Amino acid sequence: MTENHRIVLARRPTGSPVQDDFREEWRPISVPGPGELLLETLYLSLDPYMRGRMSDEASYAAPIALGDVIVGRTISRVAASNTSAFEVDQIVLATSGWQSYAVSDGQGLRVLDPNAFAPTLALGVLGNSGFAAWVGLNEIAHVTAGDTVAVAAATGPVGATVVQLAKAAGARIIAIAGGPDKVAYARDSLGADVAIDHRAEEFAALLASAAPDGIDVYFENVGGEVLFEILPRLKDRARVAVCGLIAWYNLGKEPPGPDRSPALMRALLRKRLRMEGFVLTDWEHRRAAFEAELTQRVGEGGLVFREDVVDGLQHAPSAFIRLLEGGNFGKLMVRVAA
Amino acid sequence: MTENHRIVLARRPTGSPVQDDFREEWRPISVPGPGELLLETLYLSLDPYMRGRMSDEASYAAPIALGDVIVGRTISRVAASNTSAFEVDQIVLATSGWQSYAVSDGQGLRVLDPNAFAPTLALGVLGNSGFAAWVGLNEIAHVTAGDTVAVAAATGPVGATVVQLAKAAGARIIAIAGGPDKVAYARDSLGADVAIDHRAEEFAALLASAAPDGIDVYFENVGGEVLFEILPRLKDRARVAVCGLIAWYNLGKEPPGPDRSPALMRALLRKRLRMEGFVLTDWEHRRAAFEAELTQRVGEGGLVFREDVVDGLQHAPSAFIRLLEGGNFGKLMVRVAA
Repeated sequence: MTENHRIVLARRPTGSPVQDDFREEWRPISVPGPGELLLETLYLSLDPYMRGRMSDEASYAAPIALGDVIVGRTISRVAASNTSAFEVDQIVLATSGWQSYAVSDGQGLRVLDPNAFAPTLALGVLGNSGFAAWVGLNEIAHVTAGDTVAVAAATGPVGATVVQLAKAAGARIIAIAGGPDKVAYARDSLGADVAIDHRAEEFAALLASAAPDGIDVYFENVGGEVLFEILPRLKDRARVAVCGLIAWYNLGKEPPGPDRSPALMRALLRKRLRMEGFVLTDWEHRRAAFEAELTQRVGEGGLVFREDVVDGLQHAPSAFIRLLEGGNFGKLMVRVAA
Repeated sequence: MTENHRIVLARRPTGSPVQDDFREEWRPISVPGPGELLLETLYLSLDPYMRGRMSDEASYAAPIALGDVIVGRTISRVAASNTSAFEVDQIVLATSGWQSYAVSDGQGLRVLDPNAFAPTLALGVLGNSGFAAWVGLNEIAHVTAGDTVAVAAATGPVGATVVQLAKAAGARIIAIAGGPDKVAYARDSLGADVAIDHRAEEFAALLASAAPDGIDVYFENVGGEVLFEILPRLKDRARVAVCGLIAWYNLGKEPPGPDRSPALMRALLRKRLRMEGFVLTDWEHRRAAFEAELTQRVGEGGLVFREDVVDGLQHAPSAFIRLLEGGNFGKLMVRVAA
């Protein structure tokens, strides 16, 4: 324990983030005051939503100020405690962000039991990634047996959980992923009925033959060209749960034409689609139900998950840039000090 | 009774329909067979959806074949009957289309009582226009007291009913219309809380000051630029009921850029919007409830409606072209033989 290693927002990214948008700093470790505790970051979760927080556009959450530590969920160890509510060496789910130490007043921390599950699962399948899949399928799309469900980024932590939960609900799953390894994984390990590569030249034809009768539910995690290939394949009255749009997070301005918004709206009308965006902060009242279901499934070995772990906080910016390019394979996190 | 005057689709319109897309014809009047009846058209309803049926793009309804009579709802008189189910001179709601006579087997006809209501109301406020408003507000947007509801084309037959039904439900109404006469009508006769002109240069500012706290429900009847001015004004978790997109019906191809579809989808995600298209054929099971409510309201004088009546079937094409340009003021129909 020497200094607090931290990564701050040096400037707002224009389009895709680059290394120079981030700045590494070393600062003295803060000393927790009365009632406070010091957290040492073990793992930092990297997630697409962070790109939005780096912009100053209006959104559901405030932007990160320039010079501030990038936000993020962490698995942390209690390194010092001035409160009886936490003991040294407890493992907690925290929001310390991109830094190796953080002082906390204990609010919002959640103690994890390392003997029950590997703590990193709280960043993925048992955390917000799994919760996003669960909310989108159950609360937004209302997936039921017999539905044909399509999901892109199907080997990412959200998509992989979507595939498996929808499958467990009796749906037929079309998994879309980038590259042959991910396609094979979606089919062979996650159990998708069909898995197709969005980078394949014949993607549209593959999608058409994968969904000869159309798609009931699209779990939208990506946006971009995949959405416009999905649209003509949606059945009448299909549901689109919009969880993420990673393909568009790096857009600076509106891209060149043609303007496809009329086509999107006309498809919505003609097919009587229901499209609904969701953000987990609106669904905290359902988290206990999610956790009860998912901890049971994971405990029974009924859910496959995969972690993509990068060593060293200094590599967080490059790992994050890779994430936005679809270069991760599984739940991406940085091992900071474990 | 000499010949059947009819208007057929001469060619599929490219962009905005023009006169030459239509052809007038005179044909011998068909003779009804056993069990059939002959209908004389009194009024023909002109509606934006007809533009879609003139195209051969995939939609919820089959396109009109070249050379076929344009489809449309009519108020018709039974001119001859070979069935005991109908009597000569009964007035019926029919789907004879753009022609002065049609033979029917009686299927789908609805006998109207001219002593109860003017039969033309069955084309407007008591017909599909009113039903569209009712379904969109009640079944799609779930409007409740306290909602701020915005609607464009607010003096059209759908919009005018939206304004009044939403007002009756306790909502605050922002009516959007084109030109000072329609704006005044929306405010003074329909009872909108605020009425603004989408043609005004300062439209965006007017909309912002009309909805300082944002919009809960947008009844989408128009598309086009109005939608993109509405989007930033929608509250989090707002509902958008998509009933029509008249501004885009004349689009041949996708318009030039920039591509606003990412902005649309990102707004959907960030604001957690629910957008849902609807088509009345899916809602016939609710028509009786609509009719019960609306006939009561109209009977009590609690609903204002306005008709825009054009004389002579030969003027149907020019009237329809005007409709797509927003030139109608009230429910547009053609008096064919009344």
